[in-house]
Amino acid sequence: MQRSLAAFKEYGKTPPTQRAAFLEQIAAQLESRREALVATAHEESRLPLPRLNGELTRTTNQLKMFARLVREGSWVEASIDKGDKDIRKMLVPLGPVVVFGASNFPFAFSTAGGDTASALAAGASVVVKGHSAHARTSEAVFGAVLDAIRESGVPEHTVQHVLGPGSTTGKALVMHPHTTGVGFTGSFSGGRALMRYAAERERPVPVFAEMSSINPVVLLPDTLHKNTAALVKTFAASITLGMGQFCTNPGLLLALESPALEVFLQQLGAEVSQAQAHDMLHSGIADSYAEGVKDMLDQEGIAVVQRGTGVIAKVAAAVFLRNPHFREEVFGPFSLMVVCKDKTEMTAVLENVKGQLTGTVMATEKDLEDHSDIIALQATLAGRVIINDAPTGVEVCNSMVHGGPFPATSDARFTSVGATAIKRWVRPVCFQGFPGHLLPEELQDGNPRKIWRLVNEQWLNT
Amino acid sequence: MQRSLAAFKEYGKTPPTQRAAFLEQIAAQLESRREALVATAHEESRLPLPRLNGELTRTTNQLKMFARLVREGSWVEASIDKGDKDIRKMLVPLGPVVVFGASNFPFAFSTAGGDTASALAAGASVVVKGHSAHARTSEAVFGAVLDAIRESGVPEHTVQHVLGPGSTTGKALVMHPHTTGVGFTGSFSGGRALMRYAAERERPVPVFAEMSSINPVVLLPDTLHKNTAALVKTFAASITLGMGQFCTNPGLLLALESPALEVFLQQLGAEVSQAQAHDMLHSGIADSYAEGVKDMLDQEGIAVVQRGTGVIAKVAAAVFLRNPHFREEVFGPFSLMVVCKDKTEMTAVLENVKGQLTGTVMATEKDLEDHSDIIALQATLAGRVIINDAPTGVEVCNSMVHGGPFPATSDARFTSVGATAIKRWVRPVCFQGFPGHLLPEELQDGNPRKIWRLVNEQWLNT
Repeated sequence: MQRSLAAFKEYGKTPPTQRAAFLEQIAAQLESRREALVATAHEESRLPLPRLNGELTRTTNQLKMFARLVREGSWVEASIDKGDKDIRKMLVPLGPVVVFGASNFPFAFSTAGGDTASALAAGASVVVKGHSAHARTSEAVFGAVLDAIRESGVPEHTVQHVLGPGSTTGKALVMHPHTTGVGFTGSFSGGRALMRYAAERERPVPVFAEMSSINPVVLLPDTLHKNTAALVKTFAASITLGMGQFCTNPGLLLALESPALEVFLQQLGAEVSQAQAHDMLHSGIADSYAEGVKDMLDQEGIAVVQRGTGVIAKVAAAVFLRNPHFREEVFGPFSLMVVCKDKTEMTAVLENVKGQLTGTVMATEKDLEDHSDIIALQATLAGRVIINDAPTGVEVCNSMVHGGPFPATSDARFTSVGATAIKRWVRPVCFQGFPGHLLPEELQDGNPRKIWRLVNEQWLNT
Repeated sequence: MQRSLAAFKEYGKTPPTQRAAFLEQIAAQLESRREALVATAHEESRLPLPRLNGELTRTTNQLKMFARLVREGSWVEASIDKGDKDIRKMLVPLGPVVVFGASNFPFAFSTAGGDTASALAAGASVVVKGHSAHARTSEAVFGAVLDAIRESGVPEHTVQHVLGPGSTTGKALVMHPHTTGVGFTGSFSGGRALMRYAAERERPVPVFAEMSSINPVVLLPDTLHKNTAALVKTFAASITLGMGQFCTNPGLLLALESPALEVFLQQLGAEVSQAQAHDMLHSGIADSYAEGVKDMLDQEGIAVVQRGTGVIAKVAAAVFLRNPHFREEVFGPFSLMVVCKDKTEMTAVLENVKGQLTGTVMATEKDLEDHSDIIALQATLAGRVIINDAPTGVEVCNSMVHGGPFPATSDARFTSVGATAIKRWVRPVCFQGFPGHLLPEELQDGNPRKIWRLVNEQWLNT
């Protein structure tokens, strides 16, 4: 952390062009060793090769997106007020930050993943704690980052890499006085522990933990009746994708009782049980999944629809509402259908789930007309509300929100995917009465960087 | 809090025009009872009438500024990406929030002050806990808010008002499951307690506590020599303004040892001791101030320059660096000059103070040339860096940052003064695959509100 602070003091001042080139250089270094990286990740994570190739592409695209963002420059929220006093403001990096690798995304949420890319784009230095489930992948990715550091001429310790248990190494990193922020994607217990450590520090720091979500999907009656086969196909694929090891996996389904629902459930069960299986990420996750399924199926009033590659179960809304255990996440290809007698029960179920990453509504136009309140309710629960698509498959773009009310994440005000993820690693600083040459370029008269700025309450890029 | 949640469900959906009119109506109601409000606040707070009149004007101006912001509408950070998928995003209000009145600003940081105004602008409902030191003022302001609620047709419980001790009533409000955010301006111990309560909740919520700051001022040698009289006048006024009861009071001065410094200190002492005195806000603050001064002057190596209406003391940098007590705030008209042998000591002192609201540098052009590193250092400590002006006097504008690294505030990423204070009470929500008529107006095609939006990485207001 001391080296990270020393690196930050230089790196935080690098011009945007150099920072962007560094991000692009990391992407290029990763690309140049794609085959080896994907092979190592496959050995360690058991994830299929096409998935890992796609994930690596997403990872390099993320790096390039942040490079574009930094080069364009308007993200700093520059603002100028010239009244009696000359007051200007922009975002500056926090300092050294700690990023925890995630077990379920060896590339996109790990060593050079979204947390690292957004932190580096912001001008923060990064210490990565690699995940033990893919330690060799993490080290190989870090090797690519080190080469990018050398090629780009940024300080040697701009990014550092350590391995070790979360409860000791991870805790020590979070508690270190030089640490100014933390990024984490993983379990609820792990994220909640980091939140506690950070809150107990002499100087508390923000923790961005993406932790758990059951991603409720409401299947409205008209579409369930008319589009049964298509819905079965979409959700069987979404539930079993990557053996259900996605944060946005649809773990909770809601529908009104009807003959169409019974048909849907039978077909979904059949499809899910026959899906192509592969090993889970590591034995710890496989054990947790087996235990989670067992605990869930032990609850009173639950019925198994079918079990195979994945497990589909159902429960009456009245039973769901009495037992908080049904609100818990089973990380893996498990999904629970809550059968509701009427819209009142459906509303009650949604009002009783916790904060979510996503909320989905499957609907025909007629359904949407009849259920606008259900859509509004989903927006109060989740960071992303989806109509007529599966929640899995998170686009990396400006408008993405991969975040949501606790316990989906530690802080619903931020996203860990998409361009605005950069906002987690910055704070505003106001410069009052500064002579022009002492101002950052972004705030100088004449707008040398031609960025969008709020000047006396007007948006201008001139 | 239950009533607040019910009100939020309606108020959070009010159109911007109605929300803006409501804020303007509060301002009008306050203006219409100015004389009575100022008289009551004077009785309770002992603050001079001109100050209170000015503060009430600031308060109504804040309300009007937020009305403009809401009416203009671009603050919601609308963003649209139309690729394979249709993904849109904007900020939405968090829910019911709790605002604590501040003892030192009966209007601007209390019942209808900046926290309340920014929360209402965001679409949050508010429960105010009035400060016991000006309970009647708080109730009278709340009366004005109630009339504005009736006039504007917003839900009856959009704003509510309670009185009671922080340790019971305040804690209960922060811990209530419906609470989604907290605004506080006050002591470090009070703010830190609220942070702990919020972190211990089953569902943690953000706390924006503005707590303590000694606002270091560096007086550089050339200006100290050339502009002694002007500096004495500026800082004697700033130190004693409102009996030093401002969060941005300059409690720590730094200068290199020199004959000019001795002249400055003698004149500053004389000026401060002769300043017009008035009673402090309440007996608790007066007692704390007396104790704080006594504790400080009991420290080894400190010397009193002069005491009267205010107290000026001095200490050698080497002594300051050995004793952490010198970094603590004495809330009131107290200022400690740290006499530095050289720039290295000056840098060491700055590196050893905690997070600050403001950092100030007084300098000629020559000074600035010789000390750009000192200015850069101030920017790492504080939310606002000022060149050649006193830190007291916080302009309410877009570019203001009234915030800073812990313990100045609980969260350096936000400000409690200025237009961006609204960002404390919102979170982003992503709308994916929504048919146009179900989207919020801000995200609809054709941009009916004509706000600035980021559309496929381009800023457009059409």
